[in-house]
Amino acid sequence: MSSIHDVANRAGVSTSTVSNVLNGRNDRMKSETLARVEAAIRELKYRPNTSARQLKTGRTPLIGVLVPSMANPMYGFIAREIETLAQERYGFRIMIGNTYRDRDKEARFFEDLMAHGVRGVIIISSLIDEQHFERAAERGLIMVSYDRRATPGVASVIDHVTVNSFESARLATAHLIERGHKRIAYVTPSGRTMSRDEKINGFLQAARIGGVAATAQVIEGVPPDEYGDSMMSELGRMQAVLLAKSKNRPTGVVGVNDILSFGLMAGFRDAGLSVPQDVSVVGIDNVFLSNLMYPAMTTVRVPVPEMAQVMVERVMGRLADADIPTEEFMFEPTLVVRDSVAPPPGSVRAR
Amino acid sequence: MSSIHDVANRAGVSTSTVSNVLNGRNDRMKSETLARVEAAIRELKYRPNTSARQLKTGRTPLIGVLVPSMANPMYGFIAREIETLAQERYGFRIMIGNTYRDRDKEARFFEDLMAHGVRGVIIISSLIDEQHFERAAERGLIMVSYDRRATPGVASVIDHVTVNSFESARLATAHLIERGHKRIAYVTPSGRTMSRDEKINGFLQAARIGGVAATAQVIEGVPPDEYGDSMMSELGRMQAVLLAKSKNRPTGVVGVNDILSFGLMAGFRDAGLSVPQDVSVVGIDNVFLSNLMYPAMTTVRVPVPEMAQVMVERVMGRLADADIPTEEFMFEPTLVVRDSVAPPPGSVRAR
Repeated sequence: MSSIHDVANRAGVSTSTVSNVLNGRNDRMKSETLARVEAAIRELKYRPNTSARQLKTGRTPLIGVLVPSMANPMYGFIAREIETLAQERYGFRIMIGNTYRDRDKEARFFEDLMAHGVRGVIIISSLIDEQHFERAAERGLIMVSYDRRATPGVASVIDHVTVNSFESARLATAHLIERGHKRIAYVTPSGRTMSRDEKINGFLQAARIGGVAATAQVIEGVPPDEYGDSMMSELGRMQAVLLAKSKNRPTGVVGVNDILSFGLMAGFRDAGLSVPQDVSVVGIDNVFLSNLMYPAMTTVRVPVPEMAQVMVERVMGRLADADIPTEEFMFEPTLVVRDSVAPPPGSVRAR
Repeated sequence: MSSIHDVANRAGVSTSTVSNVLNGRNDRMKSETLARVEAAIRELKYRPNTSARQLKTGRTPLIGVLVPSMANPMYGFIAREIETLAQERYGFRIMIGNTYRDRDKEARFFEDLMAHGVRGVIIISSLIDEQHFERAAERGLIMVSYDRRATPGVASVIDHVTVNSFESARLATAHLIERGHKRIAYVTPSGRTMSRDEKINGFLQAARIGGVAATAQVIEGVPPDEYGDSMMSELGRMQAVLLAKSKNRPTGVVGVNDILSFGLMAGFRDAGLSVPQDVSVVGIDNVFLSNLMYPAMTTVRVPVPEMAQVMVERVMGRLADADIPTEEFMFEPTLVVRDSVAPPPGSVRAR
């Protein structure tokens, strides 16, 4: 088994530099140095013996992970990345809870974490109100929140690791407008979360700049059964059938996420429309399944592995040194063009 | 908050009957009584205060859940069902590990569970060799294994909760043969697990009985990158492209599971074939995404919620009473007919 000295030798740095990387203290490190240390850790399969150390000091080598539902492939993907990193790099296991974006379930999960002696938690929730997070943080939980931005100008006791959701929706929408669409829609579940609000704003701004604001509509649908494993796709499917029947139906539609957009594509087909000949569809997330759809779905990539790495490093870093100030980390999305967008029917470019 | 007495009153039974249900001791209970008690538990949202009780007795109200990868939607679904039941009915949390079907990772997870004082674990692995499970069981872990049958005639220290995998593949294959297919193939990853072997046997038996044995081929493909989130689908996609080019290509194909079959459908399209006009595809599992494919994919339902319930009840029951003998529970799959199977091209019935 490799030691921290082996890693330092391989990377050509001091052991304290390796320790800094392991504890997430790499803010002022050259990115080249960081990359070299991470490569050495990977190549040597170095696994710090945190587990034994933590057990000795009475701290539990577990972190909590709170997700809306593991049955959603996007959350399964994020949780897998978190678990693998926490385990392979730090010897930590994860305790996971499905909380269905329910505040009481979230609060109860925090209680249980503390009862188990768990001090670090990664939260995937996006609820706008995070007072129950702040309260748990005040009681000593070290928290990193995914996909939820800090309130501007307010000092937070929580780290925020987010993707630029405004930009995700803006990219998807601008892509439709560039391909010639003038009547567009954005479909989202009605429950408000911060990232959902930002996505709506991104859609509306792209529509305004693209000059199609008058025909851009935001459709908020009530989920049929909040957080069953198929509720997102069912909502998309229902809304697509309604949109297909509507007067002046949109020729291009953006869904709040890939799973909802899978439902949109199926619903348009149910209504006798072809994707993308009659209607174009764009998703957000780039779960691996979007490339298996027919047509392969155009979407916006959220950099999950990179985000998971920062989340795990921040939890570990702050567990090691509680005085590290909280921060906000924002990642940029990128458009992934596949086959679910075409020029609108009847347009000159389509012929 | 409801008490056990409220549940007993609502169901018209004694509190000890309710307790038997909660602890999985319902073998000799009338199914009607069991259903009534379960309905009362659900309606009253009864949640036993197991957590506090266990903490007092020094036992940790956590169960371990070992999955190959949470990023696979089937395992995310199973884990979600287990967590929800364990939490809502017993006040237990879950500690989860992705073990990628790697024996060393599995053994290390068992070590960590024991170090954390966790005594119950649900294992989703299907490795043929389960000696490392037996060893962990001998050291006091209470284990329930999913999708892996007990060795016939050998007393096991592990509960086995399985679906009839032989029957899953037999149903899928017989459906193709009934629709007129005479050249059929079965595609599976090359790594042998018990359920994969059983599925191969089910395919071969259906082919023999259907009189197409001479043209039934089992294709074992080497996964491109074991247990990346997309490896199953990539394997299916690669194999479909190869099959499409083969002489006397099959007109109907069964995939080892839905995710691989999604890849089969995409790969046949890559090669210029239409599903189901040129080639029919059947999956196994019935993950919710199979109904979002185009065409909607015909598959075989595995009764996950029912299986998860038995797994959780068995762990809890045996944690409460270590003398309960281990058992094997086998569930039956059912065919779900959708749109990915048609008569083979050129057949009389197809015209």
